[in-house]
Amino acid sequence: MEYVFSDRLKNLQGNAIREIFKLLSNPEVISFAGGLPATVCLPKEQIAKFTNELLTGEKAIELLQYGTTEGYLPLRQQIINYVKEVGIENISIDNTLIISGGQQGIDLTFKAFLNKGDNILVEDPTYLACLHILKTYECNAYGIRSDEDGININDLEEKIKKYSPKILYLVPNFSNPTGKTLSKEKRLQILELCYKNNVMILEDDPYGKLRFEGEDVNSIKSFDKYGNVIYISSFSKTVSPGLRVGFAIAEKDVIRKLTIGKQAVDVHTPTLNQAIVTEFIKDDTLKNHIKKNLPIYKEKKDCMISCIERYMPKEFKFTRPQGGLFIFGEFDKNTGISTVECFKEAVENKVAYVDGTSFFADGSGENTMRLNFSNATNDRIEIGIKKLAELFKSKIK
Amino acid sequence: MEYVFSDRLKNLQGNAIREIFKLLSNPEVISFAGGLPATVCLPKEQIAKFTNELLTGEKAIELLQYGTTEGYLPLRQQIINYVKEVGIENISIDNTLIISGGQQGIDLTFKAFLNKGDNILVEDPTYLACLHILKTYECNAYGIRSDEDGININDLEEKIKKYSPKILYLVPNFSNPTGKTLSKEKRLQILELCYKNNVMILEDDPYGKLRFEGEDVNSIKSFDKYGNVIYISSFSKTVSPGLRVGFAIAEKDVIRKLTIGKQAVDVHTPTLNQAIVTEFIKDDTLKNHIKKNLPIYKEKKDCMISCIERYMPKEFKFTRPQGGLFIFGEFDKNTGISTVECFKEAVENKVAYVDGTSFFADGSGENTMRLNFSNATNDRIEIGIKKLAELFKSKIK
Repeated sequence: MEYVFSDRLKNLQGNAIREIFKLLSNPEVISFAGGLPATVCLPKEQIAKFTNELLTGEKAIELLQYGTTEGYLPLRQQIINYVKEVGIENISIDNTLIISGGQQGIDLTFKAFLNKGDNILVEDPTYLACLHILKTYECNAYGIRSDEDGININDLEEKIKKYSPKILYLVPNFSNPTGKTLSKEKRLQILELCYKNNVMILEDDPYGKLRFEGEDVNSIKSFDKYGNVIYISSFSKTVSPGLRVGFAIAEKDVIRKLTIGKQAVDVHTPTLNQAIVTEFIKDDTLKNHIKKNLPIYKEKKDCMISCIERYMPKEFKFTRPQGGLFIFGEFDKNTGISTVECFKEAVENKVAYVDGTSFFADGSGENTMRLNFSNATNDRIEIGIKKLAELFKSKIK
Repeated sequence: MEYVFSDRLKNLQGNAIREIFKLLSNPEVISFAGGLPATVCLPKEQIAKFTNELLTGEKAIELLQYGTTEGYLPLRQQIINYVKEVGIENISIDNTLIISGGQQGIDLTFKAFLNKGDNILVEDPTYLACLHILKTYECNAYGIRSDEDGININDLEEKIKKYSPKILYLVPNFSNPTGKTLSKEKRLQILELCYKNNVMILEDDPYGKLRFEGEDVNSIKSFDKYGNVIYISSFSKTVSPGLRVGFAIAEKDVIRKLTIGKQAVDVHTPTLNQAIVTEFIKDDTLKNHIKKNLPIYKEKKDCMISCIERYMPKEFKFTRPQGGLFIFGEFDKNTGISTVECFKEAVENKVAYVDGTSFFADGSGENTMRLNFSNATNDRIEIGIKKLAELFKSKIK
């Protein structure tokens, strides 16, 4: 049978990170490619303990039966408190939806708001899964220039006028892939600008809790008087990515539409997984866990930065994040270096990264790359960066 | 902010079963509405034991980290053996994809094959979530007349000619909602007819293992020489619906497209949940568990049928399934009974069902209803059917 696939998928390649992930089953490869939490930071004893209590407790049957699409009620209730930490107050459970990982929030938002051919705006570079998901809706993304403190407001204003976007997608804290954080001032400006122009803001905040330096900035959602922000976050970077639990906060009408979309895609997020997360956030377990882990992340970040400074060619510029998982780097264009072309050789040398092209709305950024510092040990960070440096130095024209 | 939702969702109501599910938090309500496995049949001790072993074992970290979109390798390997029981032979892991519940297989298939405005064919009545998901792709479903042994082949042939459908969706074993099983002869005829006309068959088989009477029929996929069948199943009815684990079997090229779609919607199915299911199927645990449960399901089915015979008005005709979870009933149209209109009163009387209209492609079937026999105790089945019978008798014109 000759298959006739849908227009949305017929030419769509796999999400670059997912495809690289499959290559990394070889444990010899030092991976700076994924966005994996440090293995030592996964709270496996606590998860084992909570899970055992849950499955031998009186709620076990509830956790194994079908649940509501909106989510496990005790988790939705805890989320109301949890988001106070990012300044979101005065919400009810009707403003919450439990999702199967933060990324599902992007998919459901696009499902609820976008028609084929619609435009959205993103920071350039941005989270590649956002661009990948967008293609499954046959929509277009346009990139906004990125300053030190996040997107350039003038460029945003121009592009809102030019493209009439339905949505602005942002990762305001320790952006994927740049590690940059959007300043409070800009958060307020963006909010006003988007509201005036009927643009929904999709605020994706998976990394906010992973701040090891500097001061927290409240979420854009916390300043949202108009209801045009959808805030999504997840427990993938703080509890466990394998559990696939995240949440969305939005106005009731929006949550309702996201819920109807979710009914269609996966009925509900597994209840056991939701209950495990509930145990983590109902008291200070997660807070203490993160507190213990932050110095580990900071050390890894410092280690990678000092290795980059020591080994990488001087034509390589890079970000210095105060949190999160990523450093973004850029070769001077005069070097002629293509991180796309070098990738295969890097993996043969047993070190992996993600080339920058998947993060740019227009597919540019061939001289750029994302480096994850959270997953490799310090020893392997040094070996890996050294190998990359040698490779790239040999390619400079 | 005034929200402008997408065309696909702006007028879409919630999936009827999901909406009813929310009403049923009151334990006093006797529910014949959901498709919930019997509470006593949920293997909570085994799940607790396996989970504890997994989370305290050497693979714990792998289960908590990110996994591949295609699924947990040991589960994909086990699935190859598992589907031999439905006659599917000679496949490799490249023909398998782990999904977040069987329903996700419908969504991913539509994502991969359908463009806006495309047509599909379904049995009339059919699984309501299929019709609900289809609306999120802005496509059209046309119903095929249903005989005792499944869809009418002449009607199928006519409607293939008339509507040029991309997909035929079928629940061949103990169909949701009718409980009917498609004969082997028809499976072969359907396969040839669909192949000749370039129609993909989406074979949805969540209930096949729940046969308490009669003889198994091999899956349509087992006869598929051409690669035009996508077989999906799940562990929701046999292990636990709350875990949300299912799988798809198809040609490699199709699996690849479904995988790219899945990358976009939820990255991967939770690995812990996949590993729990792996423990159930790697030896005879699941087989023995089902064997123990089948008499319970048969007893409940027999109980409901004898209550229907005893209490319901003679104008009510109904199916007598040999497995699965559902009985489908139909009032003679002369009675003037609308199961839609009666629903509110039934719930006030503390008994719930699903009216038939959500199961018909054209929204007809106002004189029909689906009754689930698996979730209520026998005592409550009798009380519930008696209450329904009284209600309906009082409404006969």
